[in-house]
Amino acid sequence: MAARVTAQMVAERAGVSQSAVSRVFTPGASASSRTVEKVRKAAEELGYRPNVLARAMVSGRSRMIGLVVAYLDNHFFPDVLERLSNALQEQGYHVLVFMASPTGNVDNVLEEIMGYQVDGIIMASVAMSSDIALRCQARGVPVVLFNRSQDIDGLTWVTSDNVNGARQAGEFLVAGGHERLGYIAGWDGASTQRDREAGFRNALADAGRRIFAREVGDFHSERTQDAALRMFDVPADKRPDGVFVANDHMATIVMDVLRFDLGLRVPEDVSVVGYDDAPPAAWPAYNLTTVRQRVNLMVEETVGALLEAIETPKDAKPRHVAMDAPLIVRGSARVPEGWTT
Amino acid sequence: MAARVTAQMVAERAGVSQSAVSRVFTPGASASSRTVEKVRKAAEELGYRPNVLARAMVSGRSRMIGLVVAYLDNHFFPDVLERLSNALQEQGYHVLVFMASPTGNVDNVLEEIMGYQVDGIIMASVAMSSDIALRCQARGVPVVLFNRSQDIDGLTWVTSDNVNGARQAGEFLVAGGHERLGYIAGWDGASTQRDREAGFRNALADAGRRIFAREVGDFHSERTQDAALRMFDVPADKRPDGVFVANDHMATIVMDVLRFDLGLRVPEDVSVVGYDDAPPAAWPAYNLTTVRQRVNLMVEETVGALLEAIETPKDAKPRHVAMDAPLIVRGSARVPEGWTT
Repeated sequence: MAARVTAQMVAERAGVSQSAVSRVFTPGASASSRTVEKVRKAAEELGYRPNVLARAMVSGRSRMIGLVVAYLDNHFFPDVLERLSNALQEQGYHVLVFMASPTGNVDNVLEEIMGYQVDGIIMASVAMSSDIALRCQARGVPVVLFNRSQDIDGLTWVTSDNVNGARQAGEFLVAGGHERLGYIAGWDGASTQRDREAGFRNALADAGRRIFAREVGDFHSERTQDAALRMFDVPADKRPDGVFVANDHMATIVMDVLRFDLGLRVPEDVSVVGYDDAPPAAWPAYNLTTVRQRVNLMVEETVGALLEAIETPKDAKPRHVAMDAPLIVRGSARVPEGWTT
Repeated sequence: MAARVTAQMVAERAGVSQSAVSRVFTPGASASSRTVEKVRKAAEELGYRPNVLARAMVSGRSRMIGLVVAYLDNHFFPDVLERLSNALQEQGYHVLVFMASPTGNVDNVLEEIMGYQVDGIIMASVAMSSDIALRCQARGVPVVLFNRSQDIDGLTWVTSDNVNGARQAGEFLVAGGHERLGYIAGWDGASTQRDREAGFRNALADAGRRIFAREVGDFHSERTQDAALRMFDVPADKRPDGVFVANDHMATIVMDVLRFDLGLRVPEDVSVVGYDDAPPAAWPAYNLTTVRQRVNLMVEETVGALLEAIETPKDAKPRHVAMDAPLIVRGSARVPEGWTT
């Protein structure tokens, strides 16, 4: 490795102070365009690499955000990751990725993350113990939960309004005149699963109805195929004529089982409604009626809350955001007569 | 923020040396289980956060790998990102994400990455100038290109064997007795586009054939829809009866245009072959015949080459890996009589 070029060496060559060099390479700090030019030229000639880590040691800021993700199989995630990375990068931060098991304990992972001196942590679709949440807070590392809510004092979370979103899906299926409504559940450790089922059940209860059949797909491909077969590979009068599926990843799998394994028509034989509005929902091969997670706005809230907690910790209060989640009517479920959105 | 707890404080409380504390928190270093237990207990009680950055300043290792990704819209990417993150995490490294424009210059991004003192850089589906490649090398930061090859001295790259993979797609379509073969191209700044087109053309040339129609989709959703309409929304005798599409993301869009916009049957009216074997290729709604990128092995090669260059730089030589890419025969293209794979 080449010998380390220091900021002092750059400053001498550029004929400016060392603090001017530092300002040129600090996101958000100001320097005149003349200084920027001189410093960049000198840095270039010397092969200077501004040392974020050294700066972090002094300033206590690493400009890194730890992102804990459970799994990327869900089609909703790539979009989220891209938008989060872009939004943070615009603010001068970068995402350090930590993979966690979707159902496992993330406490160990969090200890490791804090060792990287991240300025904040985003946990996407994973839960933490209240113990580790308190430890993060005690160490001044703000945490925001994305797509999960959790009842821990002081914790900020951003979700879609899962209860109301799912309620709309239920009302739509009830209004469509379906006689037997099924529900395919996600992993029951997830608040999204819990809240979506509650909202769906509320809509049915308001109409004096109950769920006719329930199976568990766990947000998992193979288990969802099995769940769909258990629910629909039965005599016609025993099978639901409408089903709400707890996310789009599972809903497209359910549609494939219905059409390609069982030879049923969607929506003529069975109406299917999902949740997320992940990209494949809009593909003509699925044309899935679903509830939209407004990812753009959810990412904006997440980044806003996190940066506030990092940059002005005294003013930051825990936020609980349940972003409104509109029903997107496409072709996979019977549309009630006279329905207007 | 709570006052910083030092390794020395943990060592005193645990009744061990400071270097024992350091070993307990260094991935890959050894310590007796008794020491580990004492140190972890003391660290826990004091709220000690092992400081990766401080270690990086001393050891010159940050245990971070910069990952430059262009866009995640391609269904091939989430899988790659998850596998790369997991494989590196198993080796005690974490991925720091940098988003780049797919067609833009990544030189600025690379300067920024080096400021984070990453131990190595993986560039996924983006290209760099030879100038910046040399600068990375001069500073001892190894770079591996993933899914792109580039003719720069000393650079390591890992791709699938795009030329041979695409050649198989071409041979399959020729053997299927198609009369008019089309090609839908990706962005022409990508080596994958160049090599796949070359392989396809080679197969046709060997059979004394030429491409009947060519349109450009740029690996981009809307532009691919337009390309498909230009190619297929024409009188039957003017349109290809078979098409090779430069990746699966575009191939599924082409199938949707054929079936849902133009009312054509796949493969009865038009055979479609893609490249990647991204997850949607296997979904029954597409059942896409395609060329498989062996992502698992490509990730293994990428991580192996990078860690060798980081950990034993003297022995590391540039590697050029073109992983064999088998044709996966499904239902979207006519199968030649007597065809065996």
